[in-house]
Amino acid sequence: MTAERIQDGIPIHAATDVVREISADDTLLISGFGSVGYPKAVPLALADDEADYSLTVVSGGSVGAEIDVSLVEADAVDRRFPYQARPPIRESINDGAVAFHDRNISTLGDEVRYGGLPDGGVAVVEALAAGSDWFIPTTSIGQTPAFVRSADKLIIEVNQSVPEEVRRFHDIYRLGTPPNRGPVPLTDPGGRIGKNSVSFDPEKLIGVVQTDRRDQPYAFRDPTEADRSIAAHLRSFLEREVERSPLFEESVRIQFGVGSLGNALMGALGDADFDDRELIYFGEVIQDGLLDLLDDGKLASASATSLALSSEGHERLFEDVDRYAEDIVLRPADLSNSPALIDRFGVIAVNSALEVDLFGHVNSTHLNGTRVMNGVGGSGDFNRHSPLAVLALPSVAADGDISRITPMVPHVDHTEHDIDVVVTEQGVADLRGNEPRETARDLIESCAHPDYREPLEDYLARGIESNGHIPHDLDTALSWHANR
Amino acid sequence: MTAERIQDGIPIHAATDVVREISADDTLLISGFGSVGYPKAVPLALADDEADYSLTVVSGGSVGAEIDVSLVEADAVDRRFPYQARPPIRESINDGAVAFHDRNISTLGDEVRYGGLPDGGVAVVEALAAGSDWFIPTTSIGQTPAFVRSADKLIIEVNQSVPEEVRRFHDIYRLGTPPNRGPVPLTDPGGRIGKNSVSFDPEKLIGVVQTDRRDQPYAFRDPTEADRSIAAHLRSFLEREVERSPLFEESVRIQFGVGSLGNALMGALGDADFDDRELIYFGEVIQDGLLDLLDDGKLASASATSLALSSEGHERLFEDVDRYAEDIVLRPADLSNSPALIDRFGVIAVNSALEVDLFGHVNSTHLNGTRVMNGVGGSGDFNRHSPLAVLALPSVAADGDISRITPMVPHVDHTEHDIDVVVTEQGVADLRGNEPRETARDLIESCAHPDYREPLEDYLARGIESNGHIPHDLDTALSWHANR
Repeated sequence: MTAERIQDGIPIHAATDVVREISADDTLLISGFGSVGYPKAVPLALADDEADYSLTVVSGGSVGAEIDVSLVEADAVDRRFPYQARPPIRESINDGAVAFHDRNISTLGDEVRYGGLPDGGVAVVEALAAGSDWFIPTTSIGQTPAFVRSADKLIIEVNQSVPEEVRRFHDIYRLGTPPNRGPVPLTDPGGRIGKNSVSFDPEKLIGVVQTDRRDQPYAFRDPTEADRSIAAHLRSFLEREVERSPLFEESVRIQFGVGSLGNALMGALGDADFDDRELIYFGEVIQDGLLDLLDDGKLASASATSLALSSEGHERLFEDVDRYAEDIVLRPADLSNSPALIDRFGVIAVNSALEVDLFGHVNSTHLNGTRVMNGVGGSGDFNRHSPLAVLALPSVAADGDISRITPMVPHVDHTEHDIDVVVTEQGVADLRGNEPRETARDLIESCAHPDYREPLEDYLARGIESNGHIPHDLDTALSWHANR
Repeated sequence: MTAERIQDGIPIHAATDVVREISADDTLLISGFGSVGYPKAVPLALADDEADYSLTVVSGGSVGAEIDVSLVEADAVDRRFPYQARPPIRESINDGAVAFHDRNISTLGDEVRYGGLPDGGVAVVEALAAGSDWFIPTTSIGQTPAFVRSADKLIIEVNQSVPEEVRRFHDIYRLGTPPNRGPVPLTDPGGRIGKNSVSFDPEKLIGVVQTDRRDQPYAFRDPTEADRSIAAHLRSFLEREVERSPLFEESVRIQFGVGSLGNALMGALGDADFDDRELIYFGEVIQDGLLDLLDDGKLASASATSLALSSEGHERLFEDVDRYAEDIVLRPADLSNSPALIDRFGVIAVNSALEVDLFGHVNSTHLNGTRVMNGVGGSGDFNRHSPLAVLALPSVAADGDISRITPMVPHVDHTEHDIDVVVTEQGVADLRGNEPRETARDLIESCAHPDYREPLEDYLARGIESNGHIPHDLDTALSWHANR
């Protein structure tokens, strides 16, 4: 079985040898999304290498410690796009040692191919099988197909530890080059239009490496009291909205952000009463909460670009892969997060953030406007193009010392034009059709923590004195953040 | 000829009679975009009426004085979406007398149909001809088809002053309801997939009114010295980029924002050397600059949702309508501004704004973060979905007293994730692949006015002391605005 994963006649290299083909200031375009399906042996070999690297590392989404810890601690990374989720890389970015710019997930492949980000470079991808001009990705697709087309060279890591059946989830469709891109022919959120492998120009292949190093499994924390309240409010709101809107006459399509809150919210959907409508997931990652819904017969299909599961979820999936492969599809990230498809299918978006201001602008990425956390990820793709974009977050942080509803956010990832509804453990504010003063009052009354309602009302009153459409008081707009 | 514009047997009403069917707090969903093609007789009759109206007025884009001056001065408007461009409505909004929320153009039709904005109401549309279950729009399409589907009632104003040949520009395709929306079958930016009329349920029709009141023509100011310098920098940049990028191997697709600067920039494209590549316009409005390019044989086709021409441009168009109708297409605004189509065709976006901050966030709408100007319009649709989003603006305002490059913008319409390149009369900053400090330095060196470079550098230095990914100094971030 193992031997068959690499086509006859293809030489297998040691990772320590293949890194000789990577120059000190090269660009690495690496597979991986949701911290799975990324290369492991080559990054570790680079981290151990004596050469003085100053690499640019571009991934589709988040990757593991082999890259964002080991390579960073070896001081081998100079520049990093578009997302990261590990303390060592985050600290290097915030200290100015690593150059970073977070980007929307859906367009990253185009940015690499057409000139927004460094082109050329070496694609380093994890595969479960490979031939002379094809390979099959492992637990995520991400931007791998676009990276392979754009790179000058290709290194494939065949990971023997990934069950071969993972190939059954893949649906890899290739977007054309504008202006001849053409319409994406997907008409069903759970449908298939592609194949399970990525093709490449054989001349690019500079080495195939073997490994059996596993992805680190996700560890979801138990839902907090606040998570459960947010989930209950969200469920009631969605039940009313699904009943009301012509968009949901036949089915409910929904996306949830990645993480423990998103996972808990998914779980709560199992109890929602959608009156026999089909529930369909169209998002970025498959998390454990979705497996529960599939097991309970409550979810018709799930489309994503990554399998970000706990150890237990991983085991469940591969114990019954025949059944799950009927309902789960993994696509490239430019399709899982496609503006055209999110709009076409009318996908409800549920994402979290650091904070939201009184007028509906959202900060997802930068603590105090300056220190980056992970990156905007796919939240921009879903919030902008969803007909119903829901922001779900606790009303406070730091044990209540910080209000997540603030006068003005010091960094904007999603504007007032993008967010429709805000849910906290306090309640729901439906901002649609509101003007800014109405938005502020709804957020204060329905979403802010009681301890912060009066200071927020004071801020709003000061702004209204100066009488503009958005009644900010610029003298004190950032004082909550500046005084932290 | 005139008589044939209204199908036999359809009674014609006086505007003063038909307004009896509009209740005091009704929602009016009106045709119009780019200040043309909006109803005139019915709004004027409402403004003259003795009843005490508190209307909600929703348009596809900007409309004329009959609505945003006369109706507003008659105190008949309580609420207004999503865009306006006349001082009386603007003042009422900033004084808090009229509730307003500006929205992205592309999704407004969906927001009306599926619950983001008030539903039901009365559609009031301008037509050049009408029957019992169809009408043909005049000089703009805007969101008219979506409004007519959503409204409970319909009033048609047949405007006898609009040349009947305008129908030859129309291509009206109807988007389906998600999740069965399906791919839009347009594969050529200048192609046609629809018909020239809008169908409606005959039971909705409550009256047909006749008028011969004309749209007010656009008056473009002469290009300033700064306009010409911006145009020259933009032209050189685009020549290099078109030569470099695989996106433009066969043709150049481009959009320009509405207004005198946009019109001047379009004109400058006539001199650009694109090495025999076809030039194609895919945007919101047809302005005079595009007619010049068509006349000179430099433009292959132009797709928009409105004919926003000067008197002279209007005359030129209708003197040779046969020729122009071959190359000009007017579509509904949910197609002219469609995220899927802007991406599919790889349209370069060129839009202006009030100001941009050192880290690439853009304020298009709110002076000092509080007083709204016109609205975000279609700039968000194009900036987000273009593979090359260019912000073109003068480096200063108010005769040099205000820098349009600022430490932090107090209102964000377009985030750092959306803008690729900034052009001022000083030069060009290509922000792609930059991290925030690099963006700040490029904007200071290449785009800021020399008088403001030192204070901007001082601000950046203060931020860098505090050492975050985006090095803001929150104590002084808004001081330039707060002290105005």
